[in-house]
Amino acid sequence: MNVTLNGRTRRFRTVTFSAAGNEVELIEQRALPHEFRLVRTGDFRATASAIRDMVVRGAPAIAATAAYGLAQGARAFRGRSLAAFAGHLRRVYETLADARPTAVDPVNAMDEVLAAMRAGDSVAEQQALALAAAEEFANRSVRECAAIGQHGRRLIRAGMKVLTHCNAGWLACVDIGTATAPLYAAQAAGRKFHVFCDETRPRCQGASLTAWELAQQGIPHHVIADNAAGHLMQRGEIDLVIVGSDRVLGRTGEVANKIGTYTAAVLAARHRIPFYVAIPLSTIDWELRSGRAIPIEERAPDEVLGAWGVGGHRPTAGGRAEKRRRQFVRIANPTSPARNPGFDVTPAELVTGIITPRGIFRPGDLWRERARLRG
Amino acid sequence: MNVTLNGRTRRFRTVTFSAAGNEVELIEQRALPHEFRLVRTGDFRATASAIRDMVVRGAPAIAATAAYGLAQGARAFRGRSLAAFAGHLRRVYETLADARPTAVDPVNAMDEVLAAMRAGDSVAEQQALALAAAEEFANRSVRECAAIGQHGRRLIRAGMKVLTHCNAGWLACVDIGTATAPLYAAQAAGRKFHVFCDETRPRCQGASLTAWELAQQGIPHHVIADNAAGHLMQRGEIDLVIVGSDRVLGRTGEVANKIGTYTAAVLAARHRIPFYVAIPLSTIDWELRSGRAIPIEERAPDEVLGAWGVGGHRPTAGGRAEKRRRQFVRIANPTSPARNPGFDVTPAELVTGIITPRGIFRPGDLWRERARLRG
Repeated sequence: MNVTLNGRTRRFRTVTFSAAGNEVELIEQRALPHEFRLVRTGDFRATASAIRDMVVRGAPAIAATAAYGLAQGARAFRGRSLAAFAGHLRRVYETLADARPTAVDPVNAMDEVLAAMRAGDSVAEQQALALAAAEEFANRSVRECAAIGQHGRRLIRAGMKVLTHCNAGWLACVDIGTATAPLYAAQAAGRKFHVFCDETRPRCQGASLTAWELAQQGIPHHVIADNAAGHLMQRGEIDLVIVGSDRVLGRTGEVANKIGTYTAAVLAARHRIPFYVAIPLSTIDWELRSGRAIPIEERAPDEVLGAWGVGGHRPTAGGRAEKRRRQFVRIANPTSPARNPGFDVTPAELVTGIITPRGIFRPGDLWRERARLRG
Repeated sequence: MNVTLNGRTRRFRTVTFSAAGNEVELIEQRALPHEFRLVRTGDFRATASAIRDMVVRGAPAIAATAAYGLAQGARAFRGRSLAAFAGHLRRVYETLADARPTAVDPVNAMDEVLAAMRAGDSVAEQQALALAAAEEFANRSVRECAAIGQHGRRLIRAGMKVLTHCNAGWLACVDIGTATAPLYAAQAAGRKFHVFCDETRPRCQGASLTAWELAQQGIPHHVIADNAAGHLMQRGEIDLVIVGSDRVLGRTGEVANKIGTYTAAVLAARHRIPFYVAIPLSTIDWELRSGRAIPIEERAPDEVLGAWGVGGHRPTAGGRAEKRRRQFVRIANPTSPARNPGFDVTPAELVTGIITPRGIFRPGDLWRERARLRG
C-alpha cells in the first residue's frame, strides 16, 4: 500500500524478494510508526532472525517471509547432489520454523514451497521452482486480501464510522490486509468514511500500526483508548466493527483474536452494531471443536506494566522529531505484578459475519460451507 | 492508610493540616507510584497551586484541601476589622475556587467552612471556627469512607476476585477511599481475596495509584490491560466489580465515572457478575433528570497518543531504580489525531447496587430513599 517518503508516494509490500541479490526485503516494523525503513536479509539465517526479532509480524506476513526464506536458502546451495541439497533444505526449513515456534503459518507456507519443488529433477530446477512457489504464495496472499476487500467493501456506506481493533492491516500481511481490506476497497470505490482505531493495549498496534497505515492512505481516523469504544457506541458514533483474527473455528464460528476483541464484540451486540471478522482461508481451523480448547498465550507482564514509545518527541521546524529512539517506560506501580492474556475468544453469537476471500458467511454457516471454504 | 518507607510502616492521610505552622501537608501524587513524598504549602496561594497542578486530585481530597486552604488563609489574617477580614476571605475563597473551576466539591466544602465561621463574633473566634470546620469536614469525609467500607465489606467473601477501575482509593479521598473502602474493611476483617486493577487508559490511575495503594496495604492484586477484563470474566476469574463515581443521578440511578466504566458494567452484566458503585453522599446529584445531560469532558489527545512513565527503570542491587524522572513517550503514529472522552455514563440497569455511607441501595431506589440519603 501507499507510503509517502519525502513528499513522494510509493507502493510497498511488507515483504518482497530480490532474485538478483537473493535477498528478502522487509519493512522494519519495529521502527514504525516513528520511522519507515527497509531491511534486506542476505541469507536464510538473517531472514529467520528477522522473523524471530519481530522485524516482520502478522501470520500472513511471516508465512510469506518464511516461504521466501526457504527459496533464499535453496538458491544459496552450490552443488548438484540432490541428497546434499535435501540435507541443506532440512537445515533451512528448521531454522526458519524455529524462528517463531508457535506459529503454524510459516510451516504451512514452507511445506507448500517444498511440495512445488518436487516437480524438479535437478538442484537448479528445484531452486527455480522454490522461488516461483514462494512468489506464488505471496501473490496468492495478496489476491486473497484483495478478494476480502471486494466482498467487504459493500458493508461500508458513505459517512459510516468504523471501529477497528489491533492491526490486521497490510503490515500484518503481504499487502492490503484483512480487516483493513474492506476499508481500502471502499476508499478506492470513492466512498468517504471515518475510522476509530482502538489503541489496543498493551502493545498498542492499533495506535501505532493501523493509525500509521490509515494516515499513509489518507483515510480520516482517530485513535481512541480501548476504554472509549463503549461510550462512542452509546452516543451513536460507531456504525460498524471490523477486526481480524488469529483463528476462526470452522465447526463453531468462534473467533480467537487480540485481547479486547471479545469486549468490542459484547459492546457491539448491546448496541446492535454489526461486528465482522475478516480473514484469509488459512485462518479457519477445521479441527478444533471448542474455543475453550484454544490455548491463550500469557505474555510478559512488562507489556502491561509499561509502554514502548518515543521520548523527547518535539517536532522541529522541519517537522522531524528531534529524537526517535524507542524506549520502554514503566507506568505501573513498580511492586505490582500483572496478568497479560494475549488473546481472547469471541463466541459466534456475537459475530455478524466472517468476511473471507470467497464471500461473507455467518459464523454458524462455515461448517456447512466447508467445501467452498477449504483450500 | 499504610505507607511503608525504608521498612517502616506508617499511616498517612492524603491531606492534613499543621496548626502550628499554618501549613497544609499533601502527598505529592504526581510523584507516585515511583516516589513517595510529602509537600507543605505555606499559604493559601500555594495550596491553590497544589490543587491546580494536581499535587492532589480526587473530589473528596481536593474538597478537604480547599477547606483547609480557606482556614489557612483565614488564620493568616492579621487585624481585628471584621469588614477587612471578610474582604480577605473573599480573595482566599476565589483563589481556591479558581484552582479547579469545574469541580463543585471544593466550593461546597468552603461554603461549609464559611457557614461555621458565622457563629464567631471576632476575627480570632472566626479563625478558630474555620480550622475546626475544616478539620470536621476532613474527619467526616473519613467517617463516610469508613461507613462505605462497613456496608460494602459484606459483599466480599473469602477467595473472591474483585475488579476495580481507575482510582477511587484513599489517594482520591482524605483516607480509606470509596471503591477501595470495602476492600480495606474486608481485609481488616481478616478476609482473603484478590483484586484485578484495570490499568485505566489513558491516564492509568489504576496501574499507578490503585496498584500502589493495594501493594502498600498488602492486598494481593494484578494489574491488567482494560482489554483483559472481558476475557477474565469469560474464564470465571472475576466475581465482583466495585468502582467509584464522579456523579450518580439520584433521579435515575445513572453513574458517571472514568471512561471505561460503562464497558466494565456491560461485560459484568453479560456474565451476571455483580457491579457496585461506592460513593460518598455528596456524589449524588438530585437535580439532573438524565445522564444525557451530563457534560462529558473531551480531554487532551496527547493522553491517548502516549503515556507518562519512568524510563531507564533498571532496579539496582539496592532495589532502587536508577532514574525516576517521569516522562512522556509518544506511542501512536505521530500524524494521527485522537478522541479522548474522559468519562462515560452507565445506565442504572447495569448497576447492582450503590454503596453509600448509609447503606447499599439499588440505583432505582435512590429517589425513594432521598430523605435518608440527603445531607
